[in-house]
Amino acid sequence: MTAAAPWPEGCASATCFTFDLDGEEVWRVDEEGARRPGVRSLGAYEAAVALPLILELLERHRVTATFFVPGREAERQPAAVESILAAGHEVGHHGHTHRSPASLDPDEEEDELAAGLAALARVGATPTGYRAPNWDLSERSVGLVAAAGLRYSSNLMNDIRPFLHAGTEVIELPVHWLLDDAPYFWFSGDNFERCLRSAAEAGQVIDEERAGLAALGGLAMLTFHPQLIGRPGRLPLLERLIADAVADPTVWVATAGAVAEFARREQDPAPREVVV
Amino acid sequence: MTAAAPWPEGCASATCFTFDLDGEEVWRVDEEGARRPGVRSLGAYEAAVALPLILELLERHRVTATFFVPGREAERQPAAVESILAAGHEVGHHGHTHRSPASLDPDEEEDELAAGLAALARVGATPTGYRAPNWDLSERSVGLVAAAGLRYSSNLMNDIRPFLHAGTEVIELPVHWLLDDAPYFWFSGDNFERCLRSAAEAGQVIDEERAGLAALGGLAMLTFHPQLIGRPGRLPLLERLIADAVADPTVWVATAGAVAEFARREQDPAPREVVV
Amino acid sequence: MTAAAPWPEGCASATCFTFDLDGEEVWRVDEEGARRPGVRSLGAYEAAVALPLILELLERHRVTATFFVPGREAERQPAAVESILAAGHEVGHHGHTHRSPASLDPDEEEDELAAGLAALARVGATPTGYRAPNWDLSERSVGLVAAAGLRYSSNLMNDIRPFLHAGTEVIELPVHWLLDDAPYFWFSGDNFERCLRSAAEAGQVIDEERAGLAALGGLAMLTFHPQLIGRPGRLPLLERLIADAVADPTVWVATAGAVAEFARREQDPAPREVVV
Amino acid sequence: MTAAAPWPEGCASATCFTFDLDGEEVWRVDEEGARRPGVRSLGAYEAAVALPLILELLERHRVTATFFVPGREAERQPAAVESILAAGHEVGHHGHTHRSPASLDPDEEEDELAAGLAALARVGATPTGYRAPNWDLSERSVGLVAAAGLRYSSNLMNDIRPFLHAGTEVIELPVHWLLDDAPYFWFSGDNFERCLRSAAEAGQVIDEERAGLAALGGLAMLTFHPQLIGRPGRLPLLERLIADAVADPTVWVATAGAVAEFARREQDPAPREVVV
Repeated sequence: MTAAAPWPEGCASATCFTFDLDGEEVWRVDEEGARRPGVRSLGAYEAAVALPLILELLERHRVTATFFVPGREAERQPAAVESILAAGHEVGHHGHTHRSPASLDPDEEEDELAAGLAALARVGATPTGYRAPNWDLSERSVGLVAAAGLRYSSNLMNDIRPFLHAGTEVIELPVHWLLDDAPYFWFSGDNFERCLRSAAEAGQVIDEERAGLAALGGLAMLTFHPQLIGRPGRLPLLERLIADAVADPTVWVATAGAVAEFARREQDPAPREVVV
Repeated sequence: MTAAAPWPEGCASATCFTFDLDGEEVWRVDEEGARRPGVRSLGAYEAAVALPLILELLERHRVTATFFVPGREAERQPAAVESILAAGHEVGHHGHTHRSPASLDPDEEEDELAAGLAALARVGATPTGYRAPNWDLSERSVGLVAAAGLRYSSNLMNDIRPFLHAGTEVIELPVHWLLDDAPYFWFSGDNFERCLRSAAEAGQVIDEERAGLAALGGLAMLTFHPQLIGRPGRLPLLERLIADAVADPTVWVATAGAVAEFARREQDPAPREVVV
Repeated sequence: MTAAAPWPEGCASATCFTFDLDGEEVWRVDEEGARRPGVRSLGAYEAAVALPLILELLERHRVTATFFVPGREAERQPAAVESILAAGHEVGHHGHTHRSPASLDPDEEEDELAAGLAALARVGATPTGYRAPNWDLSERSVGLVAAAGLRYSSNLMNDIRPFLHAGTEVIELPVHWLLDDAPYFWFSGDNFERCLRSAAEAGQVIDEERAGLAALGGLAMLTFHPQLIGRPGRLPLLERLIADAVADPTVWVATAGAVAEFARREQDPAPREVVV
Repeated sequence: MTAAAPWPEGCASATCFTFDLDGEEVWRVDEEGARRPGVRSLGAYEAAVALPLILELLERHRVTATFFVPGREAERQPAAVESILAAGHEVGHHGHTHRSPASLDPDEEEDELAAGLAALARVGATPTGYRAPNWDLSERSVGLVAAAGLRYSSNLMNDIRPFLHAGTEVIELPVHWLLDDAPYFWFSGDNFERCLRSAAEAGQVIDEERAGLAALGGLAMLTFHPQLIGRPGRLPLLERLIADAVADPTVWVATAGAVAEFARREQDPAPREVVV
């Protein structure tokens, strides 16, 4: 485990509120989904309803968040990305299409990275961090991220604190399924085997994990999908998670980008080789 | 999000109790299911046991509901549909066979719509609304619904309030899996991977979502399947959901058809293009 | 729904405790399972540990139960079946191999029925009732059951009270997944997607359903698998379910065979055609 | 059921804390997983974070545990295995690669056993017990384990107390999915259908089963995966399970090897033929 390191202002741990703005892209990425408006409407909910409600909630609690956006979704919903930027939040890279890098050949992966950057630039976003669709990196991904001049990756589950990707300047901000809303809430007509959990049940698991991370001085990288957490019945859970974090003086609440730069500057994070 | 709009009689939100009367059709739609009386008996429970109990419960609480019925089930159980109509409930279109429109070719989809209307007409029902099997619209569905003279669709998940399908007179009454009993209760020998939830667990999730919708002035489109909610152990949940709604003076309880016409007349719903 | 009918001794509802003694047969039925002692050990637990504990529990509460036994399991574990008979419990037919009748061709299904009867006869059992493996009847099953002289079937989910299979003397004793322990507890290395529930969670769902059935004057056909309910952590649930039923003077606790004969004699059950 | 037998020092039951140190091997065993650093990072968490935390916890409660280690993981993480040995814990055999013996041909299975022993020997471990990957024995496994001079197997679910494999000197220490953390916690992007349970929910099921085993004088073979139980939010569950066991004077807490040798020496365990 990366050695314990100080967090700012005497904080004992850190928390990021991050949102993967997949919108319709997650359904349009395959041809069949693109032809099914019923299924796609789950994603269309994001720009139409969920995002404004989440931005209002973040503003009310004065929290600055990070939104990872696929390039094609930025092209489809430029006003959504602009509203995120206008509210002062960070926008990160989340692929161009929503396809796992591990499923792409080398040329495709390079093209995806470039196309996503270009699409985000066109709506005024200059990402410094990369989160892969499905967190599913290929063995080339970190090298490509470094070559593109990005400063951090938020994709791996092998630590609870930031570390440095060996041989690069890329900081890793570790994630985990436990702090992602998808395992609890992802449900469509096509994955009917799933158990659709209540916000109360999901909140219990998330609370266990963030309490454990706080006790160990770790980073709680909360990952939400506006189409999931933005449902009327789940927004109170998001609000409670935000309010708890803000009210706790020992928790540093910051964007992913701010955490990456702090770690780089102040924590002297150990380099690690993840592709061996 | 469609702008907040007034609900009748000073109500702050609306609730529909809707039932998809799939009966045996959901099992007979494929040839293998048709030859398995054990599996089909799940659907036969509907007309034999569930429907009379649900009609009695609705009558006791003086609630008028909407039943979406596949044409072939109306042919198989005409007395069931007649008992629904005799009790003053609305009957809507739910396909002819229980096949997803997105899985049909254009001719088949058109035939399904016409055959369902004809079968419902033969038992005395004149639907004004359409709910697709599996809520799984094709890109042609809304146009066909409009051409058939139907007035509303209840299939999409991209809003929490009624909206108008652009270029048509069709009002959309949004739905969501969270307010459907199937994700909690659907269980047969063939989907054994599923987690069979208690009525208490399902009620917790449904309560979260309808409270959230009420707080935002939305429409809670509750969707039940008599073969699921009509089990003896689940009827108390249905009764509690009905009693809660009826007892709350800020909730307008109405049929889907009544909500669609109210929205059209009084809410000036924004037109939206869902197939792009 | 079959009309309400009196239960004996002024009881308002009835409960059967039934056990499907699948043992290793449920794993040996396919060739791959037969070659995997690790998987099969789940079934071997039944005769070695679960059955004696369950028989002791039933005796302590003076409850007579029904055990449905596949013929091949009776051949493999004759002493287990003999201990069931010696304790005064009913033994019913549960196929010869543990294969769904709906998956068999007509000759195979007939052979299964005859072979199961013969195997049970060799250990001294004379079944009067039939429960199909997986409750998965073919369209021929009821006719074959009638032709074999069996008096009841316990396989269908289309009612909550006994009924008569039209054109036969066969009484149906309805079942449901909600009252089966398998949806909560079935778990092997090969169905790893499942959610393994606690006894407390399963008990909550079962309690909801049996309370609902009691309120409606129905039959609670509790269905257990000794390899599941016989685990040390689940036996207290079985004991609670038994103790609750025995302590309630309005519940008639009886074997499936006794319920079938009572219904035939005293309830004038409506005939129903289940294969149309 | 194996007859009740005395446990040491007047204890009424026994508990082992065992850990399957699968690490990256469980992901690297197939070629696709090996090329996906995102997925593999779940396993890399084990040596980097989970193991040191678990070793600290065991030391604080003065519990000696058993770690089953695949040979290839020992080659990849020799320092991890050395830290386990240095802390005085037992190291057992867990295959060489993480492949089910039931899926191997005879030569492969023999090679796996030898290669695993050799790899463990190179890091200083001399296993006396064998736990198969996925507990999925072939029909040859027990014979091979006996021939390799190993003293116990911990793989089968057909009893709740130790027994002797007939015709060998190999003691079986029975296991069960209920006492394994994987059914509650295993979750990756590739088995997204699963229900991710809270530590509280998992603890409830585990508590039910170990209470039942204690009441029957059985052996609670708790099986953990450091990549699962070692998450910050789950370590408090592990600590509670350890603290409960240690605080209960009627529970004998021991390594698997110690339980096997005690059973052999003092319990005169009944021989049983598991492959028939």
